[in-house]
Amino acid sequence: MSSSRMHLLIILFLFLYEIEKLKLQSLSLLFMRNKQKIDICLSPSIIDLFDLSSKKVIIIDVFRATSAMCVFLNNGGNQVIPVSTIEEANKYKACNKINDYRYLVAAERNGAIVPGFDLGNSPLLYHDKNFNGHALVITTTNGTLAIEKSKELASGMLLASFLNASAIVNYILSSIKEDVLIVCSGWKGQVCVEDLLLAGLLSKEILLDNRFYANSDSVLLANHMYDLAKSNLFEFLIDSAYRKRMNLDEDVKYCLQKDIMSIVPIWAQKNIEPFSNSGYFYLV
Amino acid sequence: MSSSRMHLLIILFLFLYEIEKLKLQSLSLLFMRNKQKIDICLSPSIIDLFDLSSKKVIIIDVFRATSAMCVFLNNGGNQVIPVSTIEEANKYKACNKINDYRYLVAAERNGAIVPGFDLGNSPLLYHDKNFNGHALVITTTNGTLAIEKSKELASGMLLASFLNASAIVNYILSSIKEDVLIVCSGWKGQVCVEDLLLAGLLSKEILLDNRFYANSDSVLLANHMYDLAKSNLFEFLIDSAYRKRMNLDEDVKYCLQKDIMSIVPIWAQKNIEPFSNSGYFYLV
Repeated sequence: MSSSRMHLLIILFLFLYEIEKLKLQSLSLLFMRNKQKIDICLSPSIIDLFDLSSKKVIIIDVFRATSAMCVFLNNGGNQVIPVSTIEEANKYKACNKINDYRYLVAAERNGAIVPGFDLGNSPLLYHDKNFNGHALVITTTNGTLAIEKSKELASGMLLASFLNASAIVNYILSSIKEDVLIVCSGWKGQVCVEDLLLAGLLSKEILLDNRFYANSDSVLLANHMYDLAKSNLFEFLIDSAYRKRMNLDEDVKYCLQKDIMSIVPIWAQKNIEPFSNSGYFYLV
Repeated sequence: MSSSRMHLLIILFLFLYEIEKLKLQSLSLLFMRNKQKIDICLSPSIIDLFDLSSKKVIIIDVFRATSAMCVFLNNGGNQVIPVSTIEEANKYKACNKINDYRYLVAAERNGAIVPGFDLGNSPLLYHDKNFNGHALVITTTNGTLAIEKSKELASGMLLASFLNASAIVNYILSSIKEDVLIVCSGWKGQVCVEDLLLAGLLSKEILLDNRFYANSDSVLLANHMYDLAKSNLFEFLIDSAYRKRMNLDEDVKYCLQKDIMSIVPIWAQKNIEPFSNSGYFYLV
């Protein structure tokens, strides 16, 4: 075979090879288009980078807002009303004086109950109590901010904690048809490791169902970190900023209990939704 | 002993115990105050959360901006002029036509060289060339944004890559008295794993010197991830967004080579600094 023919053949081969590669890429894109995407937003500071309109959002604030809200709803509470500011929380407190309907009003900043309020975000304050028929108005340093940022934009919202992790996963797998974005509340805009660990657990279990796919480094990070930590979350977190900053080991231990309840707190945009037989509660 | 005395003694004991705890906390705060803090900013989107004024900033964009800049400077280039927009880069190109002094002008967006420019951010384009006396004007999707955000505020800036990692660590340990903030360039505002890995390597080595301390979860994450990945960075990154998005394995392999040069690119705010005998180059 002459050298010029050989060159032509090589060029033809490379051409066909590139065509095959393109076909494969298009096929895998098509394949992914039919799947639901799961992603993780590591902090509310970067939530604007995501298009929330067609996403179901899972809010997590392990220490301690979403854990406390889950405990409240699991113990009979029928609504959680998250508000961003102390001023708003105060308005609800004022309502209690003039209104028949009474709200429990909780406010936490920097780990402590705000003076003048009876409740904060420690789940121990909500544990072993009966909140039948009560509403909780709550503002916290980090957790309610993520909710506030998502509530206008997302196509739906759930609250997750380690306490109800499997219930959330089961609900996503059985009832959610949209893409899913897990939003970590973090600490004052920064990423925090405990939220990343729960995001890792949730995304890992959701990805076991091959209707879902992920292609972001946040999911990769969260999955690796959860694998590293899962044998002893409490021990793993010994060097975390939260445990070094706060002296709240009892709260930490409580919040790291996996699957002690099957509550699935769901955001209901305008109306107070009734308690459903399927075991969900609703926020308003 | 009477029961009321016993109560008093217990209260006294608890009081003294709390005092001791406070003393210990103050001591450890005092101890930290004399140390230099190292922290990691996981993406330029959250850089506003840090007070840069008293910090030396290390910019990293492993794939590929800071790697390419390090190669350029190591091969004799005497200035890098990072600009944020294609328009600014075009102005420098126009200067070449009317000026004696000629700039090399590079522009990259979404992984490709912008049409009309001869160079992008692939270090392979800068490798094995002699840039003696040349200046490089460069704009990239992610890397130059982090530089832009830091240059007015930080008390100084260095550029790091795996290629010059130990040189950066040695420079920090021998010459830097301020706190250090490693800024990951990420991908369009999101966190990316390759920058986190380099941040992990750098912070880990810097923390071996006990003049430094860290108390942030970003450092914890980066350190754990680097430990997981270090035995084979290329293999570890197979599931990363960059490797899935880009078909640039040769570039990736090049950028993951550790310590193939000892260049320390330092930001010089206004003047073009001369080449120093100690082996540093300067940006302008």
